[in-house]
Amino acid sequence: MEAIEKTLNFIVEIEQLKDVYRKTRPVGLDRFENSAEHSWHVCLAALMLKDFANEAVDIHRVIKMLLIHDLGEIDAGDTIIYASETSDNKAKEAAGVRRLLQLLPAELAQEFTALWQEFEAGETAEARFAKAIDRVPPLLHNLLGDGHSWKTHGVTADQVFSVNQRIAAGSEALWSVMRTRLEAAVRDGLLK
Amino acid sequence: MEAIEKTLNFIVEIEQLKDVYRKTRPVGLDRFENSAEHSWHVCLAALMLKDFANEAVDIHRVIKMLLIHDLGEIDAGDTIIYASETSDNKAKEAAGVRRLLQLLPAELAQEFTALWQEFEAGETAEARFAKAIDRVPPLLHNLLGDGHSWKTHGVTADQVFSVNQRIAAGSEALWSVMRTRLEAAVRDGLLK
Ligand SMILES: [Ca+2]
Repeated sequence: MEAIEKTLNFIVEIEQLKDVYRKTRPVGLDRFENSAEHSWHVCLAALMLKDFANEAVDIHRVIKMLLIHDLGEIDAGDTIIYASETSDNKAKEAAGVRRLLQLLPAELAQEFTALWQEFEAGETAEARFAKAIDRVPPLLHNLLGDGHSWKTHGVTADQVFSVNQRIAAGSEALWSVMRTRLEAAVRDGLLK
Repeated sequence: MEAIEKTLNFIVEIEQLKDVYRKTRPVGLDRFENSAEHSWHVCLAALMLKDFANEAVDIHRVIKMLLIHDLGEIDAGDTIIYASETSDNKAKEAAGVRRLLQLLPAELAQEFTALWQEFEAGETAEARFAKAIDRVPPLLHNLLGDGHSWKTHGVTADQVFSVNQRIAAGSEALWSVMRTRLEAAVRDGLLK
């Protein structure tokens, strides 16, 4: 029963991800998105878009990565992708993930620490696809929400294209659709 | 590209699950939980507790079920588990799930409709385990949150035990731990 008790403590502890707020509002909602509901959203997006990954991916591994990918934010907070990802913040996230996963029985802690590191490194097919999917919802929030986060944070079209073209590393097809939508946003003056 | 466009529409549409509020507050948070963040939470709980399922389960199928299990609430709303699950509400949820999944390309719509029905029926090892996991976080919220939802809704110890003992159908080990915690709550006067 000790393994179950430990795991329940982990389950309670990670609940704090529901209190980490991001920089965009879900479509139609009048509040910022939190990182827990975002994590659910990207898991479903990955599942439904898996056939468009550039390389065949083990979708279960992709989903496991996405379920835990933001846990480091419980200690480090969320940072907008257009702010340079500082090594200080990266270190805080890594320490936060380690603290949380170490609440688990050793074998699980090990498996999921390795998976989180794989996601961060972004060098496997699964990590590349997971990272591509992770970028899509904030773009949809802006595209369908009057570019609210781009405007608030003074994000330019150049920045949006340069950061998000990395979607293509996980899915050329998905980037092609998103690029078309972003180009339309530029024509419409939503993104400058 | 049409399949991607359809899937993106689905991804935007299901975002409304972030606006469906449940009856318990996450531990330490001063607001009710929404069904999207709850869905993330139970996926991770299932993943970390999979070895305690009564029967070997295909955990990827369990997680797929849990990712979509509450989609019907977008149209039907959330209902507390202690209110009798009316056939009217069940029909609304089924119609809601159908509406949403039909936004997807046909093959995906079919696969996930079947999976949702399997979860609802609760007759496979995966569905039993998924349903067991789904019951745990609201219990933790009450146990660690002064029984707030039990008190607000006048839920008795008898009701809590009779509804939640069904956790044992998915995991005897998990029910044993939760039952012990609930018995302590009765001794402490948190649950009457
Ligand atoms: Ca993040």
